[in-house]
Amino acid sequence: MDALSETTLGFITAGLSRIDDDRLRRTGVPEVVFAERKNVDQIESAMRALYDSQGFALATRIPDDAAASLRDRLPEARHDAMARALRCGSLPATGQTIGVICAGTSDIPVAEEAAFVLEAFGHSVVRRHDVGVAGLHRLLADFEGLSACRALIVVAGMEGALPSVLAGLTRTPVIGVPTSFGYGAAFEGMTALLAMLSSCAPGIAVVGIDNGFGAAAFAHKLVLEAPKR
Amino acid sequence: MDALSETTLGFITAGLSRIDDDRLRRTGVPEVVFAERKNVDQIESAMRALYDSQGFALATRIPDDAAASLRDRLPEARHDAMARALRCGSLPATGQTIGVICAGTSDIPVAEEAAFVLEAFGHSVVRRHDVGVAGLHRLLADFEGLSACRALIVVAGMEGALPSVLAGLTRTPVIGVPTSFGYGAAFEGMTALLAMLSSCAPGIAVVGIDNGFGAAAFAHKLVLEAPKR
Amino acid sequence: MDALSETTLGFITAGLSRIDDDRLRRTGVPEVVFAERKNVDQIESAMRALYDSQGFALATRIPDDAAASLRDRLPEARHDAMARALRCGSLPATGQTIGVICAGTSDIPVAEEAAFVLEAFGHSVVRRHDVGVAGLHRLLADFEGLSACRALIVVAGMEGALPSVLAGLTRTPVIGVPTSFGYGAAFEGMTALLAMLSSCAPGIAVVGIDNGFGAAAFAHKLVLEAPKR
Amino acid sequence: MDALSETTLGFITAGLSRIDDDRLRRTGVPEVVFAERKNVDQIESAMRALYDSQGFALATRIPDDAAASLRDRLPEARHDAMARALRCGSLPATGQTIGVICAGTSDIPVAEEAAFVLEAFGHSVVRRHDVGVAGLHRLLADFEGLSACRALIVVAGMEGALPSVLAGLTRTPVIGVPTSFGYGAAFEGMTALLAMLSSCAPGIAVVGIDNGFGAAAFAHKLVLEAPKR
Amino acid sequence: MDALSETTLGFITAGLSRIDDDRLRRTGVPEVVFAERKNVDQIESAMRALYDSQGFALATRIPDDAAASLRDRLPEARHDAMARALRCGSLPATGQTIGVICAGTSDIPVAEEAAFVLEAFGHSVVRRHDVGVAGLHRLLADFEGLSACRALIVVAGMEGALPSVLAGLTRTPVIGVPTSFGYGAAFEGMTALLAMLSSCAPGIAVVGIDNGFGAAAFAHKLVLEAPKR
Amino acid sequence: MDALSETTLGFITAGLSRIDDDRLRRTGVPEVVFAERKNVDQIESAMRALYDSQGFALATRIPDDAAASLRDRLPEARHDAMARALRCGSLPATGQTIGVICAGTSDIPVAEEAAFVLEAFGHSVVRRHDVGVAGLHRLLADFEGLSACRALIVVAGMEGALPSVLAGLTRTPVIGVPTSFGYGAAFEGMTALLAMLSSCAPGIAVVGIDNGFGAAAFAHKLVLEAPKR
Amino acid sequence: MDALSETTLGFITAGLSRIDDDRLRRTGVPEVVFAERKNVDQIESAMRALYDSQGFALATRIPDDAAASLRDRLPEARHDAMARALRCGSLPATGQTIGVICAGTSDIPVAEEAAFVLEAFGHSVVRRHDVGVAGLHRLLADFEGLSACRALIVVAGMEGALPSVLAGLTRTPVIGVPTSFGYGAAFEGMTALLAMLSSCAPGIAVVGIDNGFGAAAFAHKLVLEAPKR
Amino acid sequence: MDALSETTLGFITAGLSRIDDDRLRRTGVPEVVFAERKNVDQIESAMRALYDSQGFALATRIPDDAAASLRDRLPEARHDAMARALRCGSLPATGQTIGVICAGTSDIPVAEEAAFVLEAFGHSVVRRHDVGVAGLHRLLADFEGLSACRALIVVAGMEGALPSVLAGLTRTPVIGVPTSFGYGAAFEGMTALLAMLSSCAPGIAVVGIDNGFGAAAFAHKLVLEAPKR
Repeated sequence: MDALSETTLGFITAGLSRIDDDRLRRTGVPEVVFAERKNVDQIESAMRALYDSQGFALATRIPDDAAASLRDRLPEARHDAMARALRCGSLPATGQTIGVICAGTSDIPVAEEAAFVLEAFGHSVVRRHDVGVAGLHRLLADFEGLSACRALIVVAGMEGALPSVLAGLTRTPVIGVPTSFGYGAAFEGMTALLAMLSSCAPGIAVVGIDNGFGAAAFAHKLVLEAPKR
Repeated sequence: MDALSETTLGFITAGLSRIDDDRLRRTGVPEVVFAERKNVDQIESAMRALYDSQGFALATRIPDDAAASLRDRLPEARHDAMARALRCGSLPATGQTIGVICAGTSDIPVAEEAAFVLEAFGHSVVRRHDVGVAGLHRLLADFEGLSACRALIVVAGMEGALPSVLAGLTRTPVIGVPTSFGYGAAFEGMTALLAMLSSCAPGIAVVGIDNGFGAAAFAHKLVLEAPKR
Repeated sequence: MDALSETTLGFITAGLSRIDDDRLRRTGVPEVVFAERKNVDQIESAMRALYDSQGFALATRIPDDAAASLRDRLPEARHDAMARALRCGSLPATGQTIGVICAGTSDIPVAEEAAFVLEAFGHSVVRRHDVGVAGLHRLLADFEGLSACRALIVVAGMEGALPSVLAGLTRTPVIGVPTSFGYGAAFEGMTALLAMLSSCAPGIAVVGIDNGFGAAAFAHKLVLEAPKR
Repeated sequence: MDALSETTLGFITAGLSRIDDDRLRRTGVPEVVFAERKNVDQIESAMRALYDSQGFALATRIPDDAAASLRDRLPEARHDAMARALRCGSLPATGQTIGVICAGTSDIPVAEEAAFVLEAFGHSVVRRHDVGVAGLHRLLADFEGLSACRALIVVAGMEGALPSVLAGLTRTPVIGVPTSFGYGAAFEGMTALLAMLSSCAPGIAVVGIDNGFGAAAFAHKLVLEAPKR
Repeated sequence: MDALSETTLGFITAGLSRIDDDRLRRTGVPEVVFAERKNVDQIESAMRALYDSQGFALATRIPDDAAASLRDRLPEARHDAMARALRCGSLPATGQTIGVICAGTSDIPVAEEAAFVLEAFGHSVVRRHDVGVAGLHRLLADFEGLSACRALIVVAGMEGALPSVLAGLTRTPVIGVPTSFGYGAAFEGMTALLAMLSSCAPGIAVVGIDNGFGAAAFAHKLVLEAPKR
Repeated sequence: MDALSETTLGFITAGLSRIDDDRLRRTGVPEVVFAERKNVDQIESAMRALYDSQGFALATRIPDDAAASLRDRLPEARHDAMARALRCGSLPATGQTIGVICAGTSDIPVAEEAAFVLEAFGHSVVRRHDVGVAGLHRLLADFEGLSACRALIVVAGMEGALPSVLAGLTRTPVIGVPTSFGYGAAFEGMTALLAMLSSCAPGIAVVGIDNGFGAAAFAHKLVLEAPKR
Repeated sequence: MDALSETTLGFITAGLSRIDDDRLRRTGVPEVVFAERKNVDQIESAMRALYDSQGFALATRIPDDAAASLRDRLPEARHDAMARALRCGSLPATGQTIGVICAGTSDIPVAEEAAFVLEAFGHSVVRRHDVGVAGLHRLLADFEGLSACRALIVVAGMEGALPSVLAGLTRTPVIGVPTSFGYGAAFEGMTALLAMLSSCAPGIAVVGIDNGFGAAAFAHKLVLEAPKR
Repeated sequence: MDALSETTLGFITAGLSRIDDDRLRRTGVPEVVFAERKNVDQIESAMRALYDSQGFALATRIPDDAAASLRDRLPEARHDAMARALRCGSLPATGQTIGVICAGTSDIPVAEEAAFVLEAFGHSVVRRHDVGVAGLHRLLADFEGLSACRALIVVAGMEGALPSVLAGLTRTPVIGVPTSFGYGAAFEGMTALLAMLSSCAPGIAVVGIDNGFGAAAFAHKLVLEAPKR
């Protein structure tokens, strides 16, 4: 089994971590810095290590109070405040397009995280924000513009109904992303998560709550493989 | 406080139960026999006691194996196998119409329980079955026919999205009834219940899982009060 | 199906949002600003956009630290600190009355949110605060004063028993609103929510935890429709 | 510490069990046979071992299909089908009275288990069945008759509101027993359990779901100690 | 039914609240101020209103930052920082003794709340702190000193095993109080709560998580009634 | 918006159902009969209606006791006992290959449901059964044989770790299917579901518990779209 | 990494399964047949395949209705009805002793599963049944007899307190096994599981609910390694 | 029963606590200060009391803002910021080695707590950090170096799969420690906890979430006993 036994399987030992810089070759998705509990020094050094090794580095969940320092220290990096993400370089353009659709304005940060990651991975993104099921005509208004998309990432909190409605209208596969936004009985995204997993409309697969990165990584692998066959 | 202190507040002592035959006068909704764990004798005697006292008796959740005997013993009663309900007499006609809409064929028994109770309580019912969000055009096909309804009882299992979509399209108040039907992550109706309670579309109130009777009783009170003012 | 296909179905594109200013015509309930995670600029611009389009704007869950600035910037608006809500203008008076009843003093903010929204939507409100089941005589003392109400919004935390008791005493439909107040095993409102959904007294429908707005919107639709028939 | 180190602390080794026949002396509550998963032979031999050792034996949760055989084999025993309990002998009469109150007819088996155990332990029992909060006047009708009780065991399923209402009306301590009966969102007694634990009326303590025996044992210890001081 | 219909059933209307100053007469437990979310003004005025009406006032869950001001404003009051409680006056001495036992040092605040309330209600208290089941000999060392107690309030977090062990050793009824202290899988007291409710040792009743007040109120009613018979 | 407003949007009214025979054209996935609670008559008539309309019909979750009769009545259908599925005809061959991998022998029925549906929809399937993480070498033994797959459907109960391990080894997108098999703390598939959703390996999307059909439908849409671009 | 890449890493392909007959060498614990959902043919063939390959075979959770047939077909096997387990041969004797202790008689089947597996794996077992915390003296009576044990497997349902008490008394490591037995709020073993995981007594590790096999396998590895150092 | 009845069973009364300084002799694990909610004074005095009594003191979960003061006040103590732990002295060296392995960098604090405790208890520790299942080759790279370990403490958040994979590769017993790190559906460690408890690989026992101390204490007892036999 070559994937595990090859001598070329390496990693970078950096302080207490073993950075898996072979992951990009092996899986198509590079190791990414999850910055939520890290300080500026840790984020910077991880970004530099990854960039040095593979010419590309991405960090998600940049804490708000770390963003300014990171922009100073990594002037070549691109930071997006809404997406709370940062990248140095990008993967080669793929020519593929992914749709990112969200139900409410509170879901936009998660949608933008997905969009930022997709663009960093070389894809084009078509966005539709604030088109939830309480006013479906907002989605239908320019629905046709989504037809070039290879996949639709559909982001929703509250009752999480938007993926079901979309999956009943289109041939494009729907990747549901529940968000932690909501009130009443939304339970930090649990309700949207369960609703998406129980959809009556076939053709939906789901990632974890607020996991815009995970949805983008999945869409990336989905698209990545296509040209090979 | 007359409601509790009036001497006219009575009840019927029947075996171990205290049947609240004053409830109809007090609340507009008569005491009803919940038959799920009762045997034929118990159901029959409760029906007779209520009928003798108030000229109307209704039982819900008739066990399948009790239905035939009950039809024999209470030949004047009307039984509906789909609704699993039985009634002797009905309340006076109100001239009001309520819509009962369900998402999938598996939700029909709950919808029919609501419809049966509404008709027993004197209302007209407009039905729409199997019009879930995976194929919304089935609902929209004869949507206008629902416009005479004073309220819409919307029954759905799985992800429970139908009430949200409907509440975004109509002025009529929506009463959501989650059902225990579903798989994947439906968790015996919990997902649909939470989804309806978290709806992004205002104007929805919800009753318990599979509680077609409760939705009908609420709709009945909603309509009942209207002529008084 | 005209609701979705009419060319008149519009929305306002404002920054990243698509404001559904057709919602008032379509459903009777206008789009409302949920202000909880928004800053002063976002709240102000959304209020102005809605007010310009439909001559009415309402925001709920105003963050405490945004209230003073908003009062300065929108001097024509009415703000209620207890209800944490803000409105510019109001919908036409309906001549209808809704009761808003709460169990404990900690439930008052949720009750006042409901009352504020109802008044903004053109209704009269009869209030009863702090009349929980540990001292029922407080409720019964002026119970008759509730008889003109078309619906009762009943707000309770802890064990959420008040809607059950009320529904057993009155012909008026009861809309239960569980609150997140409580201790012991109240679990942020989950216990009150489940208790209201499991009520032994028929004629109760429930909205999500702390959702005073949702209860008011439902009551509004309930009342709104009445005159049409 | 005498309770654990005394040489008189004994037990009966019977097959695979170590029957704690010292428990009655030590705690005032004898070891009792929980019969739910036991066969007729096991129940009979445990009853005989306990009776031989302490002149009293009690079994609860007698499976329906074991009852007839047990009555044959233990002709001196008293069996109660509603309570699903069986006893040989009884503890000395205490002259104390405990109230056992239940909300609905479906809660009666749990109430009767409590009453049977109390009577076996030497107490008098005052019963009130089917007096739930949907029709409170049924409880108030002969409420005064409960005044001689040292404690009230209050049994309720559904939303479990009855203990709260009672504790707000009386000086007698209330022991709440949630039952697994209910539908909608009763979740096999979880809702009633949480509601009783979150009661806004002080003076309630709670036992596990359907645990009529536990409530009776607690009431027994409560009463038992009183004469000592 | 006099409890609800007597004309003497009163309450004090104070701002938005209806203070139930009849509760002491009716139930033996006075209305108490739950101070957790109240400011100094609200706590002071509620304390004064209760004290003026019934010569006794008690507040629990005093926020830490309100304590100093309250001591200044209510110099006649007694405040206990560990118990986070405050009282003006006390109920008449009863000559009864209650044991308050806690498993770990982190459980002491809840135990002291119970003890403070009991003393305010006129009882003597015997305390045992930090005697959890990991070192049972600490409990057994002076176990006999608990023999004069009419009830044992047993406070424990983590796995909540102490009530079970105690109930197996003594004739005194055990009132279990789960606390929110713990880690691993303690889930803010849920585990201790469920464990106490599932105890294999009969004679335990349970109140909500961290509800020292509730346990004291229940013990108070338990003792209160005894002399009447 | 043509999807909802086109006059060609039809459905078949059959008894109480509205069969969405337009779904295949609109979404690429035909309406499918979920047979779990249906009797032989209902399954047969739904199969015939779908087959007559679109030349293809598929039913999943065939009850064991309905299988023989259905084979008799629909002799042209193909039934697979392991997959509990039945089909009449198949969709056109796509030339695409999907991998279906399961962790344990108890997961095979879910894996076979996915495989059956994929083959019915025109795809080739590569199977790997019983290759769970307790003995990873069983998976690695012929891992290369999976390289032609466009997607991997990975079915696992218990702790649901297999998708994580696979996603770390391959460029192919992984669709996780948790199963209800397991013991210890598997909780009917909840543990596997949550584990897959929380995977540390990017590139996984998940469907509901035991939802082999849903995984196949998603994989089908994923593959279906590819040739269009 | 030899464990995964060695060519000697084999498995047996038998029908749909890949039996990991290398597991015994690699981990010290052989692959075992989990028989719960298997029929007699499947169990027999798996037992034979394992026995042929490694001279030892073990099956757990033998369904009651399969036991007699299996005894007929595998006359050389030893079956234990209480443990619901079956074995052909045993691993070499280790000379080590493990204690298996259970709280109540209903926990005995899980304890016996552990004991059966331990004996099959070559260990001696010291048993203590029915020694729960409601009567701790039953445990202490012959506590010293446990001193030769290398580990204590402690099996308990209900509130699961026994492991805590034991871990506070002894130097021997405690392996907690929660069982699904219980009522009140035991929730099929969840309460005991959480309680054991939250124990205040250090030195406890826990396996899943009813997982006697898992506890035995862990104890086996614990002992197995000892002689190597 | 000597463990509980010996007169030598003592404890230190210090303020409100009863410090169990006999625990080390009795169980092999000394009483340890859980510092999470304690202030500097409380931690210092508890450390001094334990050190004076037994020549060793250990505190875990040192709050960040207490660390500097404690280092000043207890200059002889050793503090580890990553492990958030502090010790004065250590137990005698055992010559045993335990492995501590963690899946991600966010799990390191929990792993280091375990390692710190093990070293304080006299053991050697072999560490492997950041070797999660998304890149298994990082673990396998120097897997052989773990072969001298008597037990492996395996720390993981997210889906908690690492213990399963390890237990399938090695004879050494695995002690799983779920951590609260994760997102998506990790639910503060609940998912990792349930996954480890449901592992398909036998030979795993589990401690509570983030309970590095508990894992170390268990490993310590496991090793401690070995030389005695």
